[in-house]
Amino acid sequence: MHAITIPEPGGPEALTWTEVPDPEPGEGEVLVEVVASAVNRADILQRQGHYAPPPGASPYPGLECSGRIAALGPGVGGWSVGDEVCALLAGGGYAEKVAVPAGQLLPVPKGVGLREAAALPEVTCTVWSNVFMVAHLRPGETLLVHGGSSGIGTMAIQLAKAVGARVAVTAGTREKLDRCAELGADILINYREQDFVAEIREATGGAGADVILDNMGAKYLDRNVRALAVNGRLAIIGMQGGVKGELNIGALLAKRAAITATSLRARPLAEKASIVAAVREHVWPLFGGGRIRPVVDREVPMSEAPAGHRLLEESGHIGKVLLVTG
Amino acid sequence: MHAITIPEPGGPEALTWTEVPDPEPGEGEVLVEVVASAVNRADILQRQGHYAPPPGASPYPGLECSGRIAALGPGVGGWSVGDEVCALLAGGGYAEKVAVPAGQLLPVPKGVGLREAAALPEVTCTVWSNVFMVAHLRPGETLLVHGGSSGIGTMAIQLAKAVGARVAVTAGTREKLDRCAELGADILINYREQDFVAEIREATGGAGADVILDNMGAKYLDRNVRALAVNGRLAIIGMQGGVKGELNIGALLAKRAAITATSLRARPLAEKASIVAAVREHVWPLFGGGRIRPVVDREVPMSEAPAGHRLLEESGHIGKVLLVTG
Repeated sequence: MHAITIPEPGGPEALTWTEVPDPEPGEGEVLVEVVASAVNRADILQRQGHYAPPPGASPYPGLECSGRIAALGPGVGGWSVGDEVCALLAGGGYAEKVAVPAGQLLPVPKGVGLREAAALPEVTCTVWSNVFMVAHLRPGETLLVHGGSSGIGTMAIQLAKAVGARVAVTAGTREKLDRCAELGADILINYREQDFVAEIREATGGAGADVILDNMGAKYLDRNVRALAVNGRLAIIGMQGGVKGELNIGALLAKRAAITATSLRARPLAEKASIVAAVREHVWPLFGGGRIRPVVDREVPMSEAPAGHRLLEESGHIGKVLLVTG
Repeated sequence: MHAITIPEPGGPEALTWTEVPDPEPGEGEVLVEVVASAVNRADILQRQGHYAPPPGASPYPGLECSGRIAALGPGVGGWSVGDEVCALLAGGGYAEKVAVPAGQLLPVPKGVGLREAAALPEVTCTVWSNVFMVAHLRPGETLLVHGGSSGIGTMAIQLAKAVGARVAVTAGTREKLDRCAELGADILINYREQDFVAEIREATGGAGADVILDNMGAKYLDRNVRALAVNGRLAIIGMQGGVKGELNIGALLAKRAAITATSLRARPLAEKASIVAAVREHVWPLFGGGRIRPVVDREVPMSEAPAGHRLLEESGHIGKVLLVTG
């Protein structure tokens, strides 16, 4: 088969479409013939040499895919060769085939095409595990999503609205904010022109956000704590604004607030399987009725993965950038 | 009645035993004739002028007491005049009488004397709400308690052992560590001579602490994050080591860890009542059978409250310092 390899870490051109051996499905795994994968920020870090795959994972990038089951490894039940699926991966999605633990498979949801299903595993699992399983966003509460037009952001808006929460987003252009509004966002904040702490306070009668989903890390840490409501929960899922930041513990304590930081990739199989199962139970039924849908910016041939990475690095996209094999 | 007032903020001598009007129990409150109160770090901050009582609270210090119910306000059920009780207070414990919302009352537990019951409300409510209700310490997990010989620490050790957890403590002298060991602590760390990060890692086979109960705040923030295990929870309840500290978000994210910071005093009545109810349900049955007990360093007459404050400020005490009216 072919896969994207990274002979030398570097810029987008480091991604090289290469002939490599087919993977073999191990115990409890299935082999998926990949129809599409999607670009994640973590893939860019991996390409740059800053994010090594966890032990045992495929050396190729790609944290999600959609496709058809081509073979079952030993001990797999509940799935058949030919099933159309999408999957959360620890790596290896940028390839024509990938071996996947069965606990990380999801059926293609109702009303969603096979290719665009590749846009779903990372965003649904990340949003559900952070905003709902950890931060327990409740109906009537306010969620602040940084990067509202990103893949994660567009799904967070839809899921929070589907459970009856109020949604505030930050984004850097009018066009991005308009797309967030179309998806249901109630409070639109242009972070280039507005102070999100002041805006979220004003929009909530001074209370602040009950939950914040943050991809910026250090750069926003102090402002996020200030933007939180009493009993607020800050869920950090990215560090695009740096790794180390000053925490005002006094402000956190006065609000009885919580900060969590998570990622999916390094989790043990059992934790991933339990998140995937929760997503299948709670999120999958929302597809098909028009309540939520994948948001795909565009599709790029997988062999042209460098172009896909450039799209993410230029940050002009809205939703997910797919890499398709077909 | 008499109460400790603070005519001018300052050192221990600022605490002045003064004749003041009796409090009146309002709707849903009872009047308690105080037998004992206890000294908390927050009282020292209040005495110094750094911690104003929350709106509506008594102006006198004292966050807990024991005594007898002297009168019932309108709308109080389930309690009678003469009942021996202890209570969580928003202030006013350093007095001969105090008005208390009924939801913050607890009966004197089995096997505990009326005076020593004053040692219990703050420590049981703080430990239960943070270590169990928020951080969900589970049997077999490891809890690290900073200041193991403090009032909070001595109760945290006992409660964690009672649920089957392993307990590590830090303290500054051999004598304090020995007392922690008598209460059940498994791992003893002298913070003056040892690096608690290295010690907790070694004692847990490299894993780290599942839950840390911290009273130091900024000074320990980075080390606490390093001492956490994967899926670890850092519960901050004090800032004796400063308010602002550098947070390594990358380290937090790699561990999928959480930081919470809480205090009891400023919470709405309903939250306090739900914590007190949980303590009555889960903690109170552990008294009497010898599984847990109050740890009292000594009793000081309430009119000599300055001496009680000096004991806490000198940090030679183990467990709680009581102020008794009798």
